[in-house]
Amino acid sequence: MVTLKEIARECNVSPTTVSNILNGKPKVSEETKERVLETVNRLGYRPNYIAQGLRNQKTKMIGIIAEDIAQFTTPEIVEGIMSYCEEKGYRSIVKNLRLYARWSDSWYNKESDYHAILEPAIRELTSIMVDGIIYIAGHARVIHCFPEDFSTPAVMTYAFDSNPAIPCVGIDDQGSAYEAVKYLISKGHRKIGVIGGRADNIHTQQRLLGYQKALFEHQVLYNPAWIRYAAWDETSAYIEALELMKTEVTAVFCMADRMAGGLYRCLNENGKRAGTDMAVVGFDGQEISEYFIPGLTTMALPLRKIGHVSAEVLLRQIESGDSRIRQEDGAEKILIPCTFIERESVHQI
Amino acid sequence: MVTLKEIARECNVSPTTVSNILNGKPKVSEETKERVLETVNRLGYRPNYIAQGLRNQKTKMIGIIAEDIAQFTTPEIVEGIMSYCEEKGYRSIVKNLRLYARWSDSWYNKESDYHAILEPAIRELTSIMVDGIIYIAGHARVIHCFPEDFSTPAVMTYAFDSNPAIPCVGIDDQGSAYEAVKYLISKGHRKIGVIGGRADNIHTQQRLLGYQKALFEHQVLYNPAWIRYAAWDETSAYIEALELMKTEVTAVFCMADRMAGGLYRCLNENGKRAGTDMAVVGFDGQEISEYFIPGLTTMALPLRKIGHVSAEVLLRQIESGDSRIRQEDGAEKILIPCTFIERESVHQI
Repeated sequence: MVTLKEIARECNVSPTTVSNILNGKPKVSEETKERVLETVNRLGYRPNYIAQGLRNQKTKMIGIIAEDIAQFTTPEIVEGIMSYCEEKGYRSIVKNLRLYARWSDSWYNKESDYHAILEPAIRELTSIMVDGIIYIAGHARVIHCFPEDFSTPAVMTYAFDSNPAIPCVGIDDQGSAYEAVKYLISKGHRKIGVIGGRADNIHTQQRLLGYQKALFEHQVLYNPAWIRYAAWDETSAYIEALELMKTEVTAVFCMADRMAGGLYRCLNENGKRAGTDMAVVGFDGQEISEYFIPGLTTMALPLRKIGHVSAEVLLRQIESGDSRIRQEDGAEKILIPCTFIERESVHQI
Repeated sequence: MVTLKEIARECNVSPTTVSNILNGKPKVSEETKERVLETVNRLGYRPNYIAQGLRNQKTKMIGIIAEDIAQFTTPEIVEGIMSYCEEKGYRSIVKNLRLYARWSDSWYNKESDYHAILEPAIRELTSIMVDGIIYIAGHARVIHCFPEDFSTPAVMTYAFDSNPAIPCVGIDDQGSAYEAVKYLISKGHRKIGVIGGRADNIHTQQRLLGYQKALFEHQVLYNPAWIRYAAWDETSAYIEALELMKTEVTAVFCMADRMAGGLYRCLNENGKRAGTDMAVVGFDGQEISEYFIPGLTTMALPLRKIGHVSAEVLLRQIESGDSRIRQEDGAEKILIPCTFIERESVHQI
C-alpha cells in the first residue's frame, strides 16, 4: 500500500500539500495539483482513514470473484450467493477474471499470468472493504488462490484451495455418478459404456469412481475398453460415440449433456434412437438437455444450492469474527449431490 | 448524501470527534466510538475527501449494472464489454439486480420496487467513483433508468432509456427478421407461419415488421391467421405449433430458438421432420440450437459485439469529457444486426 508520505516524496512536496489537494483545498497551484493527482492515480494511493476507522466494523458487502461468468455454471452460482446474501442483508459485487475468454482451456497452466490477473481483483475488493470474498472456479481443481496469511473471510466455490484454511463448496461428483449408473443398472443394463471428460480432470476421475463403485456393488465386471475420454464437447464425444457403437454396450453414461449431444447425433445418423436402441444418461442438467428428442435423463448440477451454501459458510465466518488462519485442522469441504432428472432416454431391457 | 455534521448532530458530539474516530485517533471513549461508527454505518456516510480531490481525475474503472446475469443474453454482453475495456486499460465491476430471479416476468410493471433496487446499485457504483456505467437490460423496452440530471457517463444496453441523453445499443430486430424471412422465400417458401413472442414486446413487434417487409417486397400476401404469439418458451410455442400444423404453411419463422424447440417436438410427435416436412428458422443462436437434430438455422444475437460497442460508446463519452446532458438532439441509438447461421432445418421447395 502506497502511503501519503511516499506520494509527497515522489512529487517533491510536503505531505500536507498532498493532503490539502486530496481534501480539495484551494491553496495549491494548478500545476502542482495536477502532478500530485496524476501520481496518486498512477501509484494507486487510497486514503485509509476509512479503513482505519472502520476496521472492526462491517460494510455488509461481499465480493464475488468469478473465473469467467460466461462459463455455463457460473451465473446460477452467483444467483444462489446473491439471493442468500440479500436475505441476510448483505450486498454483493462481482469481479470477472475472464480466464476462459482470455486463454481458452490452457489458462490453468499459466500460474504467474493467472496471479497477475487475480491479485488486482482481490486488492480491488479489499480496497472497497468487502467483509468477505467468494471465489467461483470454472471447474474443479486445486487452486493457489488465497495466500496463507489472507485475513479477509473467504470461500472457494466449485474447486479446492491449496490453502487448507479456506472452506470449499463443490459438487459430489462421485456420489452423483454412482446414482446415475445405479439407475441404468436398475433398468436392466449391465453393459454400460462411458463417455468421460478429459482423463486428468477431477470431475472425470470422481465420476469414474462413482461408476466403478456402482458396478462393483452389483457385481458387474469393469471393462476398461468401454471407458472413452473426450474433451467435454459435442464433437469429440461424437468420435468416441462412434467407437462405442461398435461394441455391445446397451447404455452409455455421458459425463456432460453436451457430450450426450454427440452420442445423440451419432445414433441419429445410424438410424437409432436414445431410449429405444441405446440408453443414455447425461450429466449437468444444462438447458440443452430439455431440448433433446427424446428428452435426456441427466444429473442436474446443484448450482443455486452451491451458491447458497457458499454464502452461508462465508457469512458464518464473517459474523462469528473467527480468524480462519487459526483453524489448524483445515476448514470444511462441502460436497453437494446433484439432482436426478428422469426423462425418456433410458429404456428397460 | 449524509454529511459529517449530520453524523455529529445525530450522535450529540462535535464534528471533530467524528473526524477523529474516522481517522483512527485514540482520544475517544469506546462507548462514543461505537455509537458514532454505528451511526456512520446506519446512515451510510462516506468521507468525500476522495471525491472532492479527484473529481476531475479518472479511476479507470467502469461499473456494469445487469438486470439479471442469469438471463442467457447477459454474460456474453458482459464479456464483450470487459474485453474492450481491458484492451483500453479500464477495469470493471458488476452489480446484479436479480430482477428475473426476484420477480420472474412481472417485474417490469413494478416501477417503484424496481427503483428501490436500482438506485442503491447506482449509488454504490458512484461511491466507488466509477468513470461510467453500462446498464444491461434483460429485454428491449423503454426504461426509466438514469435520471435527467445524471452526470456520470452512461450507456443503456439491450433496451432504451427514457432519458434521451443516454446512448443506447441494441439488436437490429427488424433487419435481422427481414433477412431470415427473405432466406425462407429464397428457398421457395411462400406460406410462412410465425411463432412470435409476447405481442406487446418490442422484439416481437420489430421482428414482425421485418417479416411483413420481406413478404411485401416479394409480393406475398400477409395472412394474419398464421401469426401466433407465444411466451418465448418451449411449452407455449408447442401449443401454437399444433395450430400451425393444421394450416398449409410450409415454413415457420420462430422468434426464439427455445420456441423452435416446441415446434420440433410437435413435428416429431407427428412423425415429421424439420428441413424435410417443414422448414424452420429460429432466432437467438442459443447453444441449444446446435443440438437440435437436424441442426437449426437461426439468427445469432450479436451479444459480444453489443457489449463491445457499448463499451466503445461509454469510453468515448468518458475520454472526451463531454457532458451528455448538453446534447439536445438526443444521444445515438445503435442497432446491430444478427449473424445468420445456416444449418439443416430449411429445405428447398
